[in-house]
Amino acid sequence: MQNEKRVILDCDPGHDDAISIILAASTISPLKIEAITTVAGNVEVEKNTLNALRVCDVAGLTDVPVAQGSTKPLLKRMEIAEEIHGETGLEGPALPSQPSKTAVQQHAVDLIIEKVMASDGDITLIPTGPLTNIALAMIREPAIIPKINEIVLMGGGTFGNWTPAAEFNIYVDAEAAKVVFESGAPITMFGLDVTHQALATQETVDRLAEIDNHVSHFVVDLLKFFIKTNQDVFGMDGGPIHDACTTAYLIDPSIFDFKHVRVDVETKGEFTYGMTCVDTNGTVNREPNVNFAYQLNQAKLWQLFEDALKGYSY
Amino acid sequence: MQNEKRVILDCDPGHDDAISIILAASTISPLKIEAITTVAGNVEVEKNTLNALRVCDVAGLTDVPVAQGSTKPLLKRMEIAEEIHGETGLEGPALPSQPSKTAVQQHAVDLIIEKVMASDGDITLIPTGPLTNIALAMIREPAIIPKINEIVLMGGGTFGNWTPAAEFNIYVDAEAAKVVFESGAPITMFGLDVTHQALATQETVDRLAEIDNHVSHFVVDLLKFFIKTNQDVFGMDGGPIHDACTTAYLIDPSIFDFKHVRVDVETKGEFTYGMTCVDTNGTVNREPNVNFAYQLNQAKLWQLFEDALKGYSY
Amino acid sequence: MQNEKRVILDCDPGHDDAISIILAASTISPLKIEAITTVAGNVEVEKNTLNALRVCDVAGLTDVPVAQGSTKPLLKRMEIAEEIHGETGLEGPALPSQPSKTAVQQHAVDLIIEKVMASDGDITLIPTGPLTNIALAMIREPAIIPKINEIVLMGGGTFGNWTPAAEFNIYVDAEAAKVVFESGAPITMFGLDVTHQALATQETVDRLAEIDNHVSHFVVDLLKFFIKTNQDVFGMDGGPIHDACTTAYLIDPSIFDFKHVRVDVETKGEFTYGMTCVDTNGTVNREPNVNFAYQLNQAKLWQLFEDALKGYSY
Amino acid sequence: MQNEKRVILDCDPGHDDAISIILAASTISPLKIEAITTVAGNVEVEKNTLNALRVCDVAGLTDVPVAQGSTKPLLKRMEIAEEIHGETGLEGPALPSQPSKTAVQQHAVDLIIEKVMASDGDITLIPTGPLTNIALAMIREPAIIPKINEIVLMGGGTFGNWTPAAEFNIYVDAEAAKVVFESGAPITMFGLDVTHQALATQETVDRLAEIDNHVSHFVVDLLKFFIKTNQDVFGMDGGPIHDACTTAYLIDPSIFDFKHVRVDVETKGEFTYGMTCVDTNGTVNREPNVNFAYQLNQAKLWQLFEDALKGYSY
Repeated sequence: MQNEKRVILDCDPGHDDAISIILAASTISPLKIEAITTVAGNVEVEKNTLNALRVCDVAGLTDVPVAQGSTKPLLKRMEIAEEIHGETGLEGPALPSQPSKTAVQQHAVDLIIEKVMASDGDITLIPTGPLTNIALAMIREPAIIPKINEIVLMGGGTFGNWTPAAEFNIYVDAEAAKVVFESGAPITMFGLDVTHQALATQETVDRLAEIDNHVSHFVVDLLKFFIKTNQDVFGMDGGPIHDACTTAYLIDPSIFDFKHVRVDVETKGEFTYGMTCVDTNGTVNREPNVNFAYQLNQAKLWQLFEDALKGYSY
Repeated sequence: MQNEKRVILDCDPGHDDAISIILAASTISPLKIEAITTVAGNVEVEKNTLNALRVCDVAGLTDVPVAQGSTKPLLKRMEIAEEIHGETGLEGPALPSQPSKTAVQQHAVDLIIEKVMASDGDITLIPTGPLTNIALAMIREPAIIPKINEIVLMGGGTFGNWTPAAEFNIYVDAEAAKVVFESGAPITMFGLDVTHQALATQETVDRLAEIDNHVSHFVVDLLKFFIKTNQDVFGMDGGPIHDACTTAYLIDPSIFDFKHVRVDVETKGEFTYGMTCVDTNGTVNREPNVNFAYQLNQAKLWQLFEDALKGYSY
Repeated sequence: MQNEKRVILDCDPGHDDAISIILAASTISPLKIEAITTVAGNVEVEKNTLNALRVCDVAGLTDVPVAQGSTKPLLKRMEIAEEIHGETGLEGPALPSQPSKTAVQQHAVDLIIEKVMASDGDITLIPTGPLTNIALAMIREPAIIPKINEIVLMGGGTFGNWTPAAEFNIYVDAEAAKVVFESGAPITMFGLDVTHQALATQETVDRLAEIDNHVSHFVVDLLKFFIKTNQDVFGMDGGPIHDACTTAYLIDPSIFDFKHVRVDVETKGEFTYGMTCVDTNGTVNREPNVNFAYQLNQAKLWQLFEDALKGYSY
Repeated sequence: MQNEKRVILDCDPGHDDAISIILAASTISPLKIEAITTVAGNVEVEKNTLNALRVCDVAGLTDVPVAQGSTKPLLKRMEIAEEIHGETGLEGPALPSQPSKTAVQQHAVDLIIEKVMASDGDITLIPTGPLTNIALAMIREPAIIPKINEIVLMGGGTFGNWTPAAEFNIYVDAEAAKVVFESGAPITMFGLDVTHQALATQETVDRLAEIDNHVSHFVVDLLKFFIKTNQDVFGMDGGPIHDACTTAYLIDPSIFDFKHVRVDVETKGEFTYGMTCVDTNGTVNREPNVNFAYQLNQAKLWQLFEDALKGYSY
């Protein structure tokens, strides 16, 4: 593919992470997945790694290395989201107990540093879990920062889901998020403002179920479980496929509308730890550091989704 | 009037404060204004007091005592909003240089304490500026807290206007707001979520201009100036008459929809000082302390407005 | 007396407060006590007021008005020190159940404002409890600040007694302390560094017991109780008569050595709330705001003490 | 040697770090130095690494691997102490421009993890710079924590030298210090309370100068420079050889007196960032986590020093 984009998916699969990987691996995707790295987040990192390996099997990513990363946040105690993703982190579809490959020995942080340092500045990082690995890579080897092509992340928003002010990924490790947001690397951010617009409903499930291949069935099973827990826990009308916005954007940027704004991460607040303060009105006099997605085109998004799943031949 | 409600208006007029007073004093209002107290906020307290006296003249409140209050926030340095309200705090209409009466000698905080302590628990406080006076009254005489009928305030919201996280009134004195929100007194809160729906536009101005009495002309002149500065500074499509939501509610509660939720005030954050964390999704496990207005009926609001202005006989 | 100094004693008696008042009222003292004001601190303010009235009886202060002040800190929940001062706040000596006079109706904060505003800038404030009243007076009437002759206070130090970092008076209301220390008023500070050198021991008790008048017996009974609780709670070798350093200084400044330094009050710390950060080494580049007592002459202090008690004729 | 103790020296040499290494490498020392790791602190990490290699040459540590570590603190901007240690970090003695060996390729954090994980739980870490490397090792591989024999560190104290509240090593990376102090690993702490008692003076210099071997001359030159800068910057009467207390303790624990206490690291304070809150009076109700050195025997310390230097044969 001509405009191939090299990416590292740093994730905690997780239903929406899994869907994000499946989009990235689809035939319509220009992404070349250099590696999948895992981080403690939705559930413990060991479970996330196992799930990443399983999703590789589903998506046919036989050659992509999976490297396990941080077991806990930089400073905070660990917090997980079992009520959303189930005990395994990927409840819903039938999963093979053992994936066909194993994770590489290299630590995720080392793999990220090695790949970025060896690159020509063309690697995009796609963090869809807490930002612990990315922050640790930046702390350990600051020289990666100017070599990162782009960080396309899911996290934050002008409102929260884990607390009134904070979204889960940022809340789990706000210090790591602060490191990343203040790093100077170019950031494209998919927060709750836009990911809540990417709401999978029963209608979505029905539409995707018609595709009728192995991968679409897997996604449908994921969505059914995810829609239900989001309804039960958050009272939502469906399941927002948060993380998949990142890869959808890299496949077709025209789906989303953006503002270039200042985003600061709160780490000191009594009630606001982990909030991303998005300066949409320009009241803060600080240099913009984030390309903030605030709107998406629903028709385009679900069409891309359908096209991606249809492309799978099994 | 049968269901007369005794109120103290604690304010920093201010265009929308002025309109709030005019609603409260109108013939359709069941409110008995016991006093108007002033606080440093939109502009310096001396200017706010002068403006309160002038508005009394406009609204015919000849017998209502006006008491001046706090000159600065509890702990923070003072901050004013001249860019919104002009140098005098009430730019727009022609104003008499000297009002017909003067403020009483009693300090606003003492007046609030005295009136509430002498009451049968039937006094409602209507703070439409920073909460400094109310907090100081509670600190000085905690016995007022169980005797306050209701605090109906304008402030806060799930988003900010002075910073990305904080609304002006709360930001100016977040410590005072924290005292009030944690006091245990019943609070009905009109934050930006709902006050931005109370948006006066050119159409509003045209409609009210037709009433053609002295008071309506005054309000029209206020709105013209206020719409313009809100457009210039915030890029809004009109002027949100924030403070007037409080008295509109007390005249006709059915205009607004409410949720009973927990609201906490952030005073420690690096980027979130003065944020009201509104737990609309119930993610925080703390007892609800606020009746939070989130929606209004536009038709009803402007009709009430029109009726109120029409009732003025001069 | 020629060099008479007008003072207001703002206190929470309290054993060492009581001794401080007795020094101030003695024949060797140039202090003219304009008023005694009370504040919540060692115990509840009502008990402190009652104790202040009782101490007036002991010290013959029949004409000095006693005004009750704040019942709780500015922002923090109240905390008391019953384990040091006993349930009444002044355990030890036999006390009349009813003092001969009552407190004035005026609130302490109003009395302080009125006295200072009516003065020629010659009134010294002597706070020996939490700084709530002084801060509230400054917040309510900032014009008092340039008219205060000097604030001679007991509080803080380079180490703590209530937490590892904080001394009791400052810890109880650090926000109030911050207001006072940043006010710009001239401050002379007696913190634990020097008050722990003012350690009353059994030897002190024996020496004072020889004086054998009514007042000395009262002081001896106070000291016996206070020495015991300080030994039990803090493991000290005696009872540090903290508060009395303030009046001892005003009677004879030569007892103490001072540095003019910057002192900042911590209100944000996780473990350091209420710490006074004393910049004795000049590492902070901020203007000095405090005359910090770091050393005293023991012989002189106890001689002054003895002389003061001997001067009482009953 | 029978009671050989395996140690890793994690440092930022630095005059007192250098002396610490020389003590550790001396004939009287039971320490087996497994590695020297470096961290950004007194000066930039590259300079610290170069200095560590030079000190290895001086001390004859030909076989000890030197591994470079963190270039900056976890979260804070970097801060260095050139005014104390000179531009090179080790001003004073003549130093070879090129050391005889080079650092290993392995990152300090990886080396620490590898050595500790491969051990039988018998490795002691001796951090004498900021705690960044140790914290990063614990974050990356929490399994090392129960395998660390002891952490013997220089840092903190009940007072500060870099700010009124904070000592340099902790101040530079308080978040890292918090990770280490809360880790659960056994900590022996040499803070300013005791290291200021290890004050090298002209008398010390004269005494050591008489030893007259290559190493003693080197140490004498270090001390001359270090005494002068400590006099100039801090107004001290000599140069406190802070870091060398750690190895002196491991050679002869009887030099020091300890209390087992709770120590918490402040990371949130406005004026107290980096303070170690040492609960010497037991006012905090938290489990002791630190063996806190508060006193040393001067005669023993300098005798050990003399013995160590005499043992060098060149």
